[in-house]
Amino acid sequence: MSKHTEQETERYVIGVDYGTLSGRAVVVRVSDGQEIASAVHEYPHAVMDTVLVHTGATLPPDWALQVPADYVEVLKIAVPAALRAAAIDPAQVIGIGTDFTACTMVPTLADGTPLNEVPGFEDRPHSYVKLWRHHAAQPQADRINELAAERGESWLARYGGLISSEWEFAKGLELLENDPAVYERMDHWVEAADWIVWQLSGRYVRNACTAGYKGILQDGEYPSPEFLAGLNPDFERFALDKVAHPIGRLGDAAGTLSAQAAGWTGLPEGIAVAVGNVDAHVTAPAAQAVAPGQMVAIMGTSTCHVMNSDVLAEVPGMCGVVDGGILDGLYGYEAGQSGVGDIFAWYVKNQVPARYFAAAEEAGQSIHQYLTDLAAPAQVGAHGLVALDWQSGNRSVLVDHEVSGLILGQTLATQAEEGYRALLESTAFGTRMIVEAFEGAGVPVTEFIVAGGLLKNPFLMQTYSDVLRLPISTIASEQGPALGSAIHAAAAAGAYASVREAGRAMGKLNHAVYQPNPESADAYDLLYAEYAELYDYFGRGRNNVMHRLRALKRAGALATRTSTEEN
Amino acid sequence: MSKHTEQETERYVIGVDYGTLSGRAVVVRVSDGQEIASAVHEYPHAVMDTVLVHTGATLPPDWALQVPADYVEVLKIAVPAALRAAAIDPAQVIGIGTDFTACTMVPTLADGTPLNEVPGFEDRPHSYVKLWRHHAAQPQADRINELAAERGESWLARYGGLISSEWEFAKGLELLENDPAVYERMDHWVEAADWIVWQLSGRYVRNACTAGYKGILQDGEYPSPEFLAGLNPDFERFALDKVAHPIGRLGDAAGTLSAQAAGWTGLPEGIAVAVGNVDAHVTAPAAQAVAPGQMVAIMGTSTCHVMNSDVLAEVPGMCGVVDGGILDGLYGYEAGQSGVGDIFAWYVKNQVPARYFAAAEEAGQSIHQYLTDLAAPAQVGAHGLVALDWQSGNRSVLVDHEVSGLILGQTLATQAEEGYRALLESTAFGTRMIVEAFEGAGVPVTEFIVAGGLLKNPFLMQTYSDVLRLPISTIASEQGPALGSAIHAAAAAGAYASVREAGRAMGKLNHAVYQPNPESADAYDLLYAEYAELYDYFGRGRNNVMHRLRALKRAGALATRTSTEEN
Repeated sequence: MSKHTEQETERYVIGVDYGTLSGRAVVVRVSDGQEIASAVHEYPHAVMDTVLVHTGATLPPDWALQVPADYVEVLKIAVPAALRAAAIDPAQVIGIGTDFTACTMVPTLADGTPLNEVPGFEDRPHSYVKLWRHHAAQPQADRINELAAERGESWLARYGGLISSEWEFAKGLELLENDPAVYERMDHWVEAADWIVWQLSGRYVRNACTAGYKGILQDGEYPSPEFLAGLNPDFERFALDKVAHPIGRLGDAAGTLSAQAAGWTGLPEGIAVAVGNVDAHVTAPAAQAVAPGQMVAIMGTSTCHVMNSDVLAEVPGMCGVVDGGILDGLYGYEAGQSGVGDIFAWYVKNQVPARYFAAAEEAGQSIHQYLTDLAAPAQVGAHGLVALDWQSGNRSVLVDHEVSGLILGQTLATQAEEGYRALLESTAFGTRMIVEAFEGAGVPVTEFIVAGGLLKNPFLMQTYSDVLRLPISTIASEQGPALGSAIHAAAAAGAYASVREAGRAMGKLNHAVYQPNPESADAYDLLYAEYAELYDYFGRGRNNVMHRLRALKRAGALATRTSTEEN
Repeated sequence: MSKHTEQETERYVIGVDYGTLSGRAVVVRVSDGQEIASAVHEYPHAVMDTVLVHTGATLPPDWALQVPADYVEVLKIAVPAALRAAAIDPAQVIGIGTDFTACTMVPTLADGTPLNEVPGFEDRPHSYVKLWRHHAAQPQADRINELAAERGESWLARYGGLISSEWEFAKGLELLENDPAVYERMDHWVEAADWIVWQLSGRYVRNACTAGYKGILQDGEYPSPEFLAGLNPDFERFALDKVAHPIGRLGDAAGTLSAQAAGWTGLPEGIAVAVGNVDAHVTAPAAQAVAPGQMVAIMGTSTCHVMNSDVLAEVPGMCGVVDGGILDGLYGYEAGQSGVGDIFAWYVKNQVPARYFAAAEEAGQSIHQYLTDLAAPAQVGAHGLVALDWQSGNRSVLVDHEVSGLILGQTLATQAEEGYRALLESTAFGTRMIVEAFEGAGVPVTEFIVAGGLLKNPFLMQTYSDVLRLPISTIASEQGPALGSAIHAAAAAGAYASVREAGRAMGKLNHAVYQPNPESADAYDLLYAEYAELYDYFGRGRNNVMHRLRALKRAGALATRTSTEEN
């Protein structure tokens, strides 16, 4: 076969990764996973966490909204751009797969129209998408957890004993109780992961991953109407009426590309559209992490940890264990850290003086790289600092979004880069806390595989290796989730018999790129012991100051707003 | 009498206030305390806390050195400049008084020559002045406190049960044990407050204030040779050989202006030179605070609290109680906060991004004023933060310079001005801790009088009033310590019968400028309760993480330096 013919017969898939701030489309070769081209489109409305852009109204603390139309723009702009850059014939594309942040929820009508697009609802904050990091449903999550523990609900242990305020039921109850009109008008409470597949295929299929991890679907059942009525009588039929829907297995096709979506994307009508999935979970096969004990950490604004296991265990504070939640046939475990890159970005934006930016620019470095390079040469502990990485709450193992950040140990000689390093370290300690929870529950972690934007910081990777005393492997793709979505598209299109096989052919991993340095690891043990002590003290009820401050903050913010409006 | 004649017969005194970074000379009218003119001279070497300028050698953490010749430059430059600006005839000046930071120690030969000016000693860090905030003698202070408690030394209770690492004996023992050659060569271990008087008058007189507060002189005796030998056999004769010297009462003349000093200053030879004193203590009469219960807080880089009382009590963690330590005939109490303005300055320099500076400049405000104005409108607690004000250690009531700072409660929405306000508040909480210690020991505080640079921030003053639930009076002079020194000069020159009488005529106070707002005070009570809980947890042994981090920092800094030197 001549090269020319080979190219012509080559087949491609599209993976689209929906992140917190943008969507990325990648064109991937089916035969070997080669990433031919990609394009990114930023959501015009980004994250609305202080103001509802459409009205100018101030949003309460802990809110985070998005606009569904922004997601569609990614299909209209990034997919065609990636196709153009790949310079392939769209007819060679056999499928499209997507992954999304989760739990990110869209309230819709029966036909999938998001409520914020329904006349009369545009001005209501509750009609918009609640992004994963919308944390205002904590009071509802608390009540869910209390009642579930009291009633001994069997599903509770599958979530480490705690349901997160980020998830479908907490956010749903918040919606009911804070804007009953929106709740009433809503026909479906849809994961954005499934909503985008609905836009592509015209079919609403609920993916097994989010249904299990975020929707409390265990052994085929949702929390019972009796339980839900115990939370609020009007919530009794929430699961039945707003949530329940046919489930699609990961790697199956949800349907085929509609004529409308073919028009948006420039792809052929009728190609396979994979069942929706979550950014972290699609990444496991992209990193060839399909064996038990391989923990994949997708490290970006937040970190999600996913791992397959043949053991079903109850790991305290994990996000969940779902049968087939990552790969069919294995128990898929998920854990997470709500803030990682987000914390570094917050610090850089709010706590780093001008002279560092000037020096970074002069050195031709990003501010993050510059601060890292400044901080890296010091011995472990030389900054005298320890931090808690809870500025965005704690997903695992505390499952508490009312906790907050802490930096301890400052002197008048403390420099900005030292605070930055303490925050980098705090996220490594947070990861160690999670790994130790798994191991303590009899689910061993043998390899730590990193995907996501933060793997480009070698000092951060080395720190994780030292703190965890584990080799760190890195995914050999800069767009792991998009590659993972493409792998699912290939499986959905039937090019491979399973996601596992597709991952074997198309996934990419560099093994054990970082090895722990024993001397640093010893020193980090000392800092970790301090972190663990503070973690326990502030996180487990010995001093609930963070909860009390959060309550004061809400009261204070409210009073401030009221008095400002009066003036 | 014509106006012309009146002016000609008017008499003046000079007050010179030696601060941490500069010396300020003020020309004051004897009859009514009118401040005619002033001039400031910044110390050329400022504070050497990272590098010994003379050799380029790195200094260990917690060091802070100064250069004695810088103090003399203030006499040569600021005093003549103030005289010129006052446009008076120097012959009308009848005395000069000085005040100094304390405990700031100069090692000298028998004639007063500072050791750093002795050939062969210029390169030794220990031959320089140890500024008050040199905190490296903590291990020595710990041993002093342990042994004193063990032996039941009677003087210990006069210092709240703890001798500070900042004081004469801890710093002296550090000197002996870390540079015995300097210790050996040193004839006198001299308070800078007395050293400058020595330069002016040619006479070494040890002032009653620092001898009592910093030199552990109680009821006429220093710690015994037996006690000192218990610390280190070579320290046995420290008090006898290096410290003991005739004591001068505050407000008396130490001597008269020497020909040499007259040449430096442009003042008449032979005028009265007041006994040395401390910045805080001279300020009490300048603020007319001579009655029991009037606590004067001199708020600048650090805060010093002084108060007269007719009661002799043991206040936990106070810096000291000295008979006649402020005014002859009353017990003078001192307490302090090691970092206040220093903390705000550290934050602004190291944790505030460029956009705030740009906006401040555009608004024509100082960065401190701009941050304050941004933070002030919010309700108490709306920032959700609580901080510990220990970035420079804790002088009262913990007397522990191994503790460090803490900021707790950050979220991804926390702004730089919110952290700034939390730090302002933390210093108010630190003050409340001190006031409560006094009241708990039966020494009531009835009025809180503020002097020093920070009184120009009305929001800070109102915060203190709300947190303390006390009216705040403010000294009606922008140069309280210098005015206080001038008052002492007037007494020393015999223009008044006592400092008290001079203060009555020349001091200036605005009564109850700020009144507590009950609503804010209630809200601050909640934040203060959190502060107090953290204070106890981190400050009183329940979690010694700050001490352990400090030890790690020292080890890490050492290792980092060694490895840098190797490369």
